[in-house]
Amino acid sequence: MSVVPKPLQHIVPLQQKLAPVLSVLERLELIEAITSRQVGHNDLVDSLTHKQNVAEVLNRLGELQSPEIAHLIEMLPQTLRFFVWDLLKVELAAEVLSELQDSVVEDVLEKTSPDRLLSILSHVEPEELAELADDLKQEDLQKALQQAISQLAADERDWIRQSRSYEEDQIGDLMSMDKLTIFGTISVQDAIKELQNIEEWPDQTDKIFVINATNRLLGELPLSTLLRRQGSRLITDVMENDCIIFLDSDPIEKAITAFEHYDLVSAPVVNARGRLIGRLTVESVMDYQMERAEDKALARDGLSVDFDLFGPILEGARQRWAWLAINLITAFAASRCISLFESTITQLVALATLMPIVASIGGNTGNQTIALIIRGLVLDQITSSNLRYLVMKELAISLLNGLLWGSVLGSAAALLYQNITLGLVMASATTLTLLFAAGFGILVPLTMHKMGRDPALGSSVILTFCTDSMGFLLFLGLASLLLVK
Amino acid sequence: MSVVPKPLQHIVPLQQKLAPVLSVLERLELIEAITSRQVGHNDLVDSLTHKQNVAEVLNRLGELQSPEIAHLIEMLPQTLRFFVWDLLKVELAAEVLSELQDSVVEDVLEKTSPDRLLSILSHVEPEELAELADDLKQEDLQKALQQAISQLAADERDWIRQSRSYEEDQIGDLMSMDKLTIFGTISVQDAIKELQNIEEWPDQTDKIFVINATNRLLGELPLSTLLRRQGSRLITDVMENDCIIFLDSDPIEKAITAFEHYDLVSAPVVNARGRLIGRLTVESVMDYQMERAEDKALARDGLSVDFDLFGPILEGARQRWAWLAINLITAFAASRCISLFESTITQLVALATLMPIVASIGGNTGNQTIALIIRGLVLDQITSSNLRYLVMKELAISLLNGLLWGSVLGSAAALLYQNITLGLVMASATTLTLLFAAGFGILVPLTMHKMGRDPALGSSVILTFCTDSMGFLLFLGLASLLLVK
Repeated sequence: MSVVPKPLQHIVPLQQKLAPVLSVLERLELIEAITSRQVGHNDLVDSLTHKQNVAEVLNRLGELQSPEIAHLIEMLPQTLRFFVWDLLKVELAAEVLSELQDSVVEDVLEKTSPDRLLSILSHVEPEELAELADDLKQEDLQKALQQAISQLAADERDWIRQSRSYEEDQIGDLMSMDKLTIFGTISVQDAIKELQNIEEWPDQTDKIFVINATNRLLGELPLSTLLRRQGSRLITDVMENDCIIFLDSDPIEKAITAFEHYDLVSAPVVNARGRLIGRLTVESVMDYQMERAEDKALARDGLSVDFDLFGPILEGARQRWAWLAINLITAFAASRCISLFESTITQLVALATLMPIVASIGGNTGNQTIALIIRGLVLDQITSSNLRYLVMKELAISLLNGLLWGSVLGSAAALLYQNITLGLVMASATTLTLLFAAGFGILVPLTMHKMGRDPALGSSVILTFCTDSMGFLLFLGLASLLLVK
Repeated sequence: MSVVPKPLQHIVPLQQKLAPVLSVLERLELIEAITSRQVGHNDLVDSLTHKQNVAEVLNRLGELQSPEIAHLIEMLPQTLRFFVWDLLKVELAAEVLSELQDSVVEDVLEKTSPDRLLSILSHVEPEELAELADDLKQEDLQKALQQAISQLAADERDWIRQSRSYEEDQIGDLMSMDKLTIFGTISVQDAIKELQNIEEWPDQTDKIFVINATNRLLGELPLSTLLRRQGSRLITDVMENDCIIFLDSDPIEKAITAFEHYDLVSAPVVNARGRLIGRLTVESVMDYQMERAEDKALARDGLSVDFDLFGPILEGARQRWAWLAINLITAFAASRCISLFESTITQLVALATLMPIVASIGGNTGNQTIALIIRGLVLDQITSSNLRYLVMKELAISLLNGLLWGSVLGSAAALLYQNITLGLVMASATTLTLLFAAGFGILVPLTMHKMGRDPALGSSVILTFCTDSMGFLLFLGLASLLLVK
């Protein structure tokens, strides 16, 4: 017997999928016209030529799935973004909404008319409404959300209330209400029959949760077990009960580690009384972890993962004020160390030229140490018993590298300015600065960690202040002792 | 009927699990004795008291699973690390090996005796051997590996040869050979019977791959479908054939996007001729993604994810040489801009004090822009059509912030040194430097991206060089024009 399958679906890169829409938007100079605001939004929609263009855009949008439309909206400049958003039918808009990053959600909803907003929200899933209620800051949007929530069924409203009661880093905040459950007292074949009647299964269902009449979790039943067991046996006899469960109040950290270590696809979440209340999936756990990793990478530059690359300009400027102000203050403070030695510099101006080099490689070395320590903390590798070895090792590395590169720098300075003492000052200041940098690089993140703060946020600013100040002080201090009278 | 379940398993934090072993090691002052090398390795094992201690450590290790032992080994200082590694039975050592990070693998294997090494490797899974053969650099280890591989069955050797032929970023390099397959020509009930005979299922099996006699992939069969279908129907009638498949030569990037977008748990990998050759799981894709994200975060400081926090000191120093050398050269080059203005500085030494501030906030602003652009590139959000808007937006933000914070800085300088012109120079140099910083912040990563290089590696170094130089040039240049004769 010959089998003629339909062609299997290869993945098409996103940019390739979006290219047709982008090219329509571009070719018709919509981008041009809208972003430069020469033509108002309404004029544009009303003119005949543009009606055809709109039709073509609509046509192209029809070929995309909601995550792809969300991606498109995220990468469009302000006005064009809202133009596309406004073209979407409310059902589709509701789907797209759940795929958009938070800052863009706020950006598009803000400009949506109240009526359309309400009708979009009425198509949004309860879980998504709960999330929006947590994230949206604007008052009008919150009101619309509350109205949409009040129109839900009682159990959905309850679920939203409960899910909103968790902290952002608690498992309860990440769990989903979708799950398959069966009673432990039925037979395998009855369970299979029951499962066959369920029209749509939740995504990433690899197991069924077994409960008793009071909704207490008894165990879990992997689909593979269900397939392999005799039909007449009781569920409680074939289920696994040394399964991994989570408490709703547990930190999400715990779930991340467990999903990684035990290669879980899904896991049950219970409350303090052992009642099954939700489910965690590998998808949600990994999404959370990726977002957190991105968050930390961006936090190093004083940015939040929630920025909007194509959002409004003033918003973008404001988001960076705090960081600029902090850096300005620390740079100003570090420069005060230089001012102590202004008379020394006047006598030997080469010092002004060379001092930023010492400060700069001090900062680099210290930041390397910080990165190592933070990773060690994240991986839970640092304890009081190995800390001593770690400190010794980092200091030894810095001493080695300080002597090596300090000599290189010192020789360069001595040659350049025909001044051997200047070379010696440069070499010793570099070595000492690197030692201090390693010390600060361990001390700063560990202290922040001990104080219960995330060392990924701000360690680098504090360190750069320390290494800049020490670099300037050591170099100029040694110079004023050895070089000028 | 009452059901009395065994207690379900809550997750115990890793550090809590490791605490007993660590405390034995610590309490018995093994750490002390070994790390300070007062007692040699053999003396230690031979002495009677220490034999008891070894027994206790062995006992504690027996309570841990292999990922936990791997974690323990990673966090131990050099000598103690090898002490624990040497205590492990070869079967367990082989399991632990596959959980260790690459640099630690090399570290422990290097010191393992040739006989023990071979017997450990003979217990390592073929897939793991292929990975080790890719990663291990030392010649002796490579020889031992080739010997271990030569003792495998022919099909396993073939698989290793094939899997080693892929590039590091190709899906073929990440896929696993474990998968469940059935022929499309059998009935659902026969398929279920066949599956029931398979003793151990691969992890994260959510679907079975349907093939024909020549191993061509016809479609896939989710377990949930298998549970819900009539027994007499043919597999080809109930399978899904609009499933998502990957080519072995596709970049892993593609798999990451698809697993995220479509919430996949596993997916088939085929070769160019459509033959099923492997399987991707959400676990391996996410591990890869996390490691890459960490890699990029560390690369910013010139570090590789493959460093070993507790590894040998010389190795640690050497790993940081390249980075130090690069930073030394760029800092030196930037300082040459200062040397052009040494006579200006001699006339007004306040310039030496203030110039690092301008350079510093230029660097901060530029790095923020780089972080935004890199994220935009990673998310595939930047195209030629929105680049213009992006450049305009970043420049506008920099201009706003430059005017605001430049005025603050200028006023501070004017007050501090009682010199209004100095304040004006400071304010305008800051504003101009921020504008240049935003420009470089876009230009540098986009150019690297266009050249096919990863902008996460090195953008920051190049930018800091540009902003330092521009900051010094603009500030000192304006000062020499306006302030001194």
